[in-house]
Amino acid sequence: MSYERPNISAMAGYVWGEQPTDTRTIKLNTNENPYPPSPKVDAALGELTGASLRRYPQPTALPLRESLARHHQLTPDHFVVTNGGDEALRLALTTFVEPGAGFGMAEPSYSLYEVLAQIQDARVVHSPLDGQWHLADNFAEQMNDESVQLTCLVNPHAPSGTLATAQQMSDIATALNGVLLIDEAYVDFVDPQIGYSAVPLLAHHDNVLILRTFSKGYGLAGLRLGYLMGSPSLLAPVMWKTRDSYNMDHLSQVVGQAAFEDQAYARETWRRVREERERLRTALSACGLTSPESQSNFLLVDCSEAPITAPALYQALKDNHILVRHFDTDRLRQSLRITIGTPEENDQLLAAIDQALSNAALTR
Amino acid sequence: MSYERPNISAMAGYVWGEQPTDTRTIKLNTNENPYPPSPKVDAALGELTGASLRRYPQPTALPLRESLARHHQLTPDHFVVTNGGDEALRLALTTFVEPGAGFGMAEPSYSLYEVLAQIQDARVVHSPLDGQWHLADNFAEQMNDESVQLTCLVNPHAPSGTLATAQQMSDIATALNGVLLIDEAYVDFVDPQIGYSAVPLLAHHDNVLILRTFSKGYGLAGLRLGYLMGSPSLLAPVMWKTRDSYNMDHLSQVVGQAAFEDQAYARETWRRVREERERLRTALSACGLTSPESQSNFLLVDCSEAPITAPALYQALKDNHILVRHFDTDRLRQSLRITIGTPEENDQLLAAIDQALSNAALTR
Repeated sequence: MSYERPNISAMAGYVWGEQPTDTRTIKLNTNENPYPPSPKVDAALGELTGASLRRYPQPTALPLRESLARHHQLTPDHFVVTNGGDEALRLALTTFVEPGAGFGMAEPSYSLYEVLAQIQDARVVHSPLDGQWHLADNFAEQMNDESVQLTCLVNPHAPSGTLATAQQMSDIATALNGVLLIDEAYVDFVDPQIGYSAVPLLAHHDNVLILRTFSKGYGLAGLRLGYLMGSPSLLAPVMWKTRDSYNMDHLSQVVGQAAFEDQAYARETWRRVREERERLRTALSACGLTSPESQSNFLLVDCSEAPITAPALYQALKDNHILVRHFDTDRLRQSLRITIGTPEENDQLLAAIDQALSNAALTR
Repeated sequence: MSYERPNISAMAGYVWGEQPTDTRTIKLNTNENPYPPSPKVDAALGELTGASLRRYPQPTALPLRESLARHHQLTPDHFVVTNGGDEALRLALTTFVEPGAGFGMAEPSYSLYEVLAQIQDARVVHSPLDGQWHLADNFAEQMNDESVQLTCLVNPHAPSGTLATAQQMSDIATALNGVLLIDEAYVDFVDPQIGYSAVPLLAHHDNVLILRTFSKGYGLAGLRLGYLMGSPSLLAPVMWKTRDSYNMDHLSQVVGQAAFEDQAYARETWRRVREERERLRTALSACGLTSPESQSNFLLVDCSEAPITAPALYQALKDNHILVRHFDTDRLRQSLRITIGTPEENDQLLAAIDQALSNAALTR
């Protein structure tokens, strides 16, 4: 007999990107930083002892929250630290969305949103993006009409990499009846010359949450560390009620803080990723593989004008031990999402793509 | 304006035991192991590098699950690894209990159960324990009558420390219409001569989950590591649907496995705790502070026959830098839950209690 809830029984789980354990594979499929975390992480790991793990951890990750507060010029009450961005998303759903109520998202977007909404038995309201990956002009109205209690928008957008302005986010937050979560998983890779920042929105909107993660910008996907920023009143039920009471282990708190406080190191990895992003985009475009202007650490490469289908190119790269991401949905079937690697990895990627395109052209 | 769900707004959060950071305090309030984890943990920490955290962790903690499977003579499919026992409890609620449906527990019990049930908006069904901390004879019937979908029973019981037999658990599992989660957070401290094991139940009951934690038995409360055991069919939706997709970070997987595979070390700490448990129970009883026979790493000490109230004794101990746990509920108001410490800590506890009792007798 089956004991799971009907909504759980009816749903499919999240499908994560392949995680090969060999060191030969060039892994450009799950948007990790191509550079390891700061050497300060190694130093912090070297100082940790088993004895420090005997007692329960600091329950609210206060030292790390104080560090975050100093950096963002806010107070520790503006922060909840989570096991990766995924836990932050789940907590927002648990706290703000009643089963049966509406959960809003753009389509396409991070596929985990829909999975988490199904677990909460929420009604998922999709708003399709236009051909330029822009939100509908009446996006907030669409959400309000469907009684959406929480809307998640990833900015820079995934999987296109495009960036909406902070003013757009502010306008949507003003118009929404529910909570707006701005998922800034990739924000560290935005060109600083653009001057994008949604953090000032928190002073004016009591319904805005901003999500950040250490998985991409700080080279710590294996650590599972992220955080939510928001007004203290909005975050209080997450901090004191719905969050697991000791959600952050001691190691993650210490290692995460070491990485975060070495901003200079992290910024240098972001600069290198941006530089390679532009080089890769130009080189791919010259092969007929165009991509929208990305402010993220990946490109969404359009294969529809190429002599090879996206699934075939995915497979050709995999045969060369290069993993990229293919999503088998109507809108994305002829695209590949390719994470920016190191210069050497990107060179190998370009060579493999060049070879695959030549082979495809020959066999036509 | 408030955006949280009505059930979240109406509930109070979990109140955790005090976690002082000074090293002077003798901390006997949250049931940590008095001994640090195995030296193998230090060795594992010493080998970890920041670079190992760059990629996402193994998504299902497979190496650790294989280790658990070998130890318990089951398959990896019988295990889901979680961020402490707390995440295991939450996942069971999320997976098996519909909002509005019944969640069953004995009263008193681990206070987090009720908090997690409130987050899920479940109806909490309490069944009071009798004077000897035994379950009602018709416990399962009470749960079925209230359409309970998940029942959590902590065994050995908290906060009394008493142990129910595996046969009792089996009988309840047979009679229940829903899932039975046996919370074995403290099972490592059961006297092995009793021969208690609920693991064989998994072969005969497709509705039984067993929860274990590394927080107590393995000296790793700061790591947040636990696991669920159950039939693969019962666990599948937890593993593939409701669990956060990368719930276990790489450090926890590696460190936890190192601790778990040093069973000889862990067993020696359990033996020492049992030895001190018996010594402490006898000594306290000689002062008029009796406690039920405990198979756990704590004693529930009854102060009702003492010349001092439980809150006053709690405060007197705190003034001596010794923290124990007091629960301000009708059934527990005249008791203190005291974690078993090292022999030296227990000596200081006994001296402080002796002093407090003498002072109280003098001032009467």
